[in-house]
Amino acid sequence: MIVALAGGVGAAKLLVGLSKILKPEELTVIVNTGDDIQLHGLHVSPDLDIAMYSLAGIADETKGWGIQGDTFHCLEALNRFTGSEWFNLGDKDLATHIFRTNLLRSGATLTEATQEIACALSVKSKILPMTDDKFETRVTTKQGTIHFEEYMVKKGAKDEVLGVEFYGSDKAQPAEGVLEAIENAERVVVCPSNPVVSISTILSVKRIRQALQHAKVPKVAVSPIIAGSPVKGPADKLLRGLGYEVSAFGVAELYMDFLGTFVIDVADASEKKRIEKLGIKVELAETMMRNLDDKIRLAKAVLDA
Amino acid sequence: MIVALAGGVGAAKLLVGLSKILKPEELTVIVNTGDDIQLHGLHVSPDLDIAMYSLAGIADETKGWGIQGDTFHCLEALNRFTGSEWFNLGDKDLATHIFRTNLLRSGATLTEATQEIACALSVKSKILPMTDDKFETRVTTKQGTIHFEEYMVKKGAKDEVLGVEFYGSDKAQPAEGVLEAIENAERVVVCPSNPVVSISTILSVKRIRQALQHAKVPKVAVSPIIAGSPVKGPADKLLRGLGYEVSAFGVAELYMDFLGTFVIDVADASEKKRIEKLGIKVELAETMMRNLDDKIRLAKAVLDA
Repeated sequence: MIVALAGGVGAAKLLVGLSKILKPEELTVIVNTGDDIQLHGLHVSPDLDIAMYSLAGIADETKGWGIQGDTFHCLEALNRFTGSEWFNLGDKDLATHIFRTNLLRSGATLTEATQEIACALSVKSKILPMTDDKFETRVTTKQGTIHFEEYMVKKGAKDEVLGVEFYGSDKAQPAEGVLEAIENAERVVVCPSNPVVSISTILSVKRIRQALQHAKVPKVAVSPIIAGSPVKGPADKLLRGLGYEVSAFGVAELYMDFLGTFVIDVADASEKKRIEKLGIKVELAETMMRNLDDKIRLAKAVLDA
Repeated sequence: MIVALAGGVGAAKLLVGLSKILKPEELTVIVNTGDDIQLHGLHVSPDLDIAMYSLAGIADETKGWGIQGDTFHCLEALNRFTGSEWFNLGDKDLATHIFRTNLLRSGATLTEATQEIACALSVKSKILPMTDDKFETRVTTKQGTIHFEEYMVKKGAKDEVLGVEFYGSDKAQPAEGVLEAIENAERVVVCPSNPVVSISTILSVKRIRQALQHAKVPKVAVSPIIAGSPVKGPADKLLRGLGYEVSAFGVAELYMDFLGTFVIDVADASEKKRIEKLGIKVELAETMMRNLDDKIRLAKAVLDA
């Protein structure tokens, strides 16, 4: 079984690539929940949803979030009640949040709710939230400390990052099945997601990090930074804000305590030696995923690394 | 100030008529909440909504529920999660339920939530739920006892009614403003709504019934039964199930302890004397509301009665 650690869009692309090579039941995905947010009383799990929608083949790949061809009629009507909505919630997408919230309120864990959603969407790979516990990624800028999604979506990730807080990480336990998945994995894949707010969140759950350190299997990550820039999103601001270099090397430093192999872009060949000095094997690949072929090619590279 | 007691579609039509004659602030509507139901964890208030949507001019008059031109994309997606949905929730309509539920969960009363919704919809008449307390109309048939909306929508109101239960009526208190509205009314209008599950629910809140009995103002009802049949809905099955005659007279018996004048259809002229024997004045009118002119004409008759 292949276990992937996943955040948002970058992960979703590699997951699609992996899903074309592996049988669904050969893939387990452990997903960041630091982005989870309550909106209008609904529990929204952006990364769980993009992972499931992508594997279900219904994700809106152009937007990078939500469901293909979705409409926004409910959101428009909500605007009338609440003023201006900053977070986009499509009508079909809302069904997921309504269903999930109702399950959670009825006493289900996020893991259980996710399983029901995945099942209804015919996603046969196992999708696991990293934790069922309260966990929230907060970003500090000059204006103060806000939820990561507010920083990202409401504020457009424009402000310089002064700090990142993983609220709840001290108490968060791995969700049911997470440790077992890592212990039984043939290989662990760290997707090319934001190293700070997608992957470090997962790693901040202590027992997950320990399980990764102890797992005696190939542990392969793909760099989300190509030639000093993130493919998408504010990874540069976040790395810089935490004092890390905005480079494949900077990401490698975050993963060095457990990582075996780092797949970096051919454009970053010059960083190979520096990264190897951290004790990490380096492989070069074309890591930009523009189409399905790219995704499958990179997935193969990751499974072969 | 005119105070109207209202249920669903029939009431909504008369309210539109009244709104064309009165200034918005001259009309207060006390609305049945016995139909309120939790669906997917959302608090749906069918009668409050149809009243507000109608006064806002956005009601779907063809369907008799929901918002004009609404779509059902969220519901279609929900079907994927829950199987077959029996209750129709449009995408725009859902915004109302999401907003209301969130307010209620944050500690607002139904009265407060309703005020916020009405305000956002630019409804300037006061819309009051009959009670903020838990109240649920249940219908007993040979198959058992179910929520009224389940009987009505899921089962299509096909089964014979053996009994009706107003769950919560023993403890329900009038919502804030309801008694004051009745005490300060120039006239009380009982809309042509289902006499059992729309009006008797309101009357089952003891202090509302007492306030109506004590109010020394014209109290005028419009019969929802014309020539022995309800204009719409299962009032016949419900009246019969409670042992009442399916006629204007049968309805009059339900209101006789407080009603001054009963406006019945010209088709029911033959019942005039029987109803007058109950101590109720009777006026004849064309009570079928097919278009806006009908609504205004009936509203005038009610205000003049």
